[in-house]
Amino acid sequence: MSPGVAEEALARTGRLVQPALFDAVARLEPEIREPVEHHLAGGGKGVRGALAVIGAAAAGGAERDGVPGAVAVELVHNYSLLHDDIIDNDEERRHRPSVWSVFGVPRAIVAGDALANLAVQVLVEESALARLRAVQLLGEATALMIGGQADDMAFERRFAVSVEECLKMEEGKTGALLSCASAIGAVLVGAGDDVVKALGLFGQRLGLAFQAVDDVLGIWGEPAKTGKPVGSDLLTHKKSLPVAIALARGGAALEAVLFGLDVGGVADATARIEATGAKEEAMAIADRAYDEALEALASVPLVQSARDDLVAIARFVTERDR
Amino acid sequence: MSPGVAEEALARTGRLVQPALFDAVARLEPEIREPVEHHLAGGGKGVRGALAVIGAAAAGGAERDGVPGAVAVELVHNYSLLHDDIIDNDEERRHRPSVWSVFGVPRAIVAGDALANLAVQVLVEESALARLRAVQLLGEATALMIGGQADDMAFERRFAVSVEECLKMEEGKTGALLSCASAIGAVLVGAGDDVVKALGLFGQRLGLAFQAVDDVLGIWGEPAKTGKPVGSDLLTHKKSLPVAIALARGGAALEAVLFGLDVGGVADATARIEATGAKEEAMAIADRAYDEALEALASVPLVQSARDDLVAIARFVTERDR
Repeated sequence: MSPGVAEEALARTGRLVQPALFDAVARLEPEIREPVEHHLAGGGKGVRGALAVIGAAAAGGAERDGVPGAVAVELVHNYSLLHDDIIDNDEERRHRPSVWSVFGVPRAIVAGDALANLAVQVLVEESALARLRAVQLLGEATALMIGGQADDMAFERRFAVSVEECLKMEEGKTGALLSCASAIGAVLVGAGDDVVKALGLFGQRLGLAFQAVDDVLGIWGEPAKTGKPVGSDLLTHKKSLPVAIALARGGAALEAVLFGLDVGGVADATARIEATGAKEEAMAIADRAYDEALEALASVPLVQSARDDLVAIARFVTERDR
Repeated sequence: MSPGVAEEALARTGRLVQPALFDAVARLEPEIREPVEHHLAGGGKGVRGALAVIGAAAAGGAERDGVPGAVAVELVHNYSLLHDDIIDNDEERRHRPSVWSVFGVPRAIVAGDALANLAVQVLVEESALARLRAVQLLGEATALMIGGQADDMAFERRFAVSVEECLKMEEGKTGALLSCASAIGAVLVGAGDDVVKALGLFGQRLGLAFQAVDDVLGIWGEPAKTGKPVGSDLLTHKKSLPVAIALARGGAALEAVLFGLDVGGVADATARIEATGAKEEAMAIADRAYDEALEALASVPLVQSARDDLVAIARFVTERDR
């Protein structure tokens, strides 16, 4: 598989999804549209939209049949980013000022609310039971995503969380919407339950693999690439996967180091976490989740070219092409 | 019409809607459920839920057929209150600490997001095209409600707004969800477009009548009853209906008074607004909107006992029984 397949698929599907996304946003009034357009101008790979339209093709439909689902999952993803940046007090997003830091918290809240509602409106523009099924799928995924976000917030107030709790949180926060994105195109073209479920499992496992890699990069990655200052995850007491693993292995001594951490202690804390083998274990979890994602894809009959695209995107988002 | 009819209808429909509302909320995880239950414990008259189940009966169905719609509109109403209290920096709601002031802004944002999503989930629990139509109706109403909220925020930054702009804002912020509440029960029992439209217009006009009265009480009402400190609407530069009318009549001199207003100037500013006749004009607008609401109800065949309940609730929320 050439490393260019994913980029080509993202570019092709972006040409299909982006205009529909901007058309939907154009309906919003200026007070809401301005902060949304500021946010969307920051880019984003459009992975969720790509999965939705390729999922429609994988299930035997046309990519364009998945467009309402693609727009809906992109809207939900972007609404969650607007609200997450307020919640996490993040002043930057994609190397640009975040929406709340430019337009204020009130407008960022309302803009997020508007995108969440627009996602549902886009899905129900046509009256068909497949559309209703898509709303059911998106509703379940959004509930899991919000639950994962709530867990993430609750964990920051706790000394430690188990690896199982962390995995459940990440399956919700990241896995649920990627699962929905992967399955919603198949739902829209009327695919059977087995295909919908397999695509959903693919996206869910891919989400976990992506998040585990992202967590590792959050501690050991280059700030220029990740866009986050060194140690920010540790300093905010985020219970990311390597931290949960390290705490399970390092016990009370490591808990004390992380709890009292300041900027000067980040390098030492990072070394202590690494010494527990938490980085390798997190990568091993990512590898297993990635393998399970591919097994799910292989478990049902799909259109081969679309399956190839899905595998390429899975490699791409888990940074296997580097 | 006895003054007790509305109270009786609200109590009866509350016994139908409240348990379903609490069942839906019980699905949420504790991190989200706690702030929501704090908020719901503050009460609320349940007018929107009542309109939804009575609307189902008015269109020839049973009140219980409207329950999913009632729960959905109550969830959207309550999510908007959670977010509005953050936006308006209101530390109290129904004489109790608001959710954000007890649980913090992040949990109040997430709790609101969860309720918004739950509203849609409740509607699509059953796969039927009437449910899809209900989602369409709720999505349109929520978009108008958010647009009205955005206008309200934008207006606070402006010197003046026209009466027309103010009415449009209030039709969105208050009228849209009351319109949806009044029509969604009829949608769920498969009523025809004429009945759905008439009930929707009833709710929309009722919303405006209610908001105009509420705006008058916000300036001239007793703080003990309204739950708001004297002059708070004026001090936050809220462009409520009497203010918009007074500014149109009082011109630049009044603009200057309101723009530079502090607590000591509230009584004088209130007298100046009253001297323009803005209070009477706002009440006249409320009267016209109330009459239009009743005309809409009379324009289609409805089950008479349900129509009587709707009229009684309309009298009740516009304070005509006092």
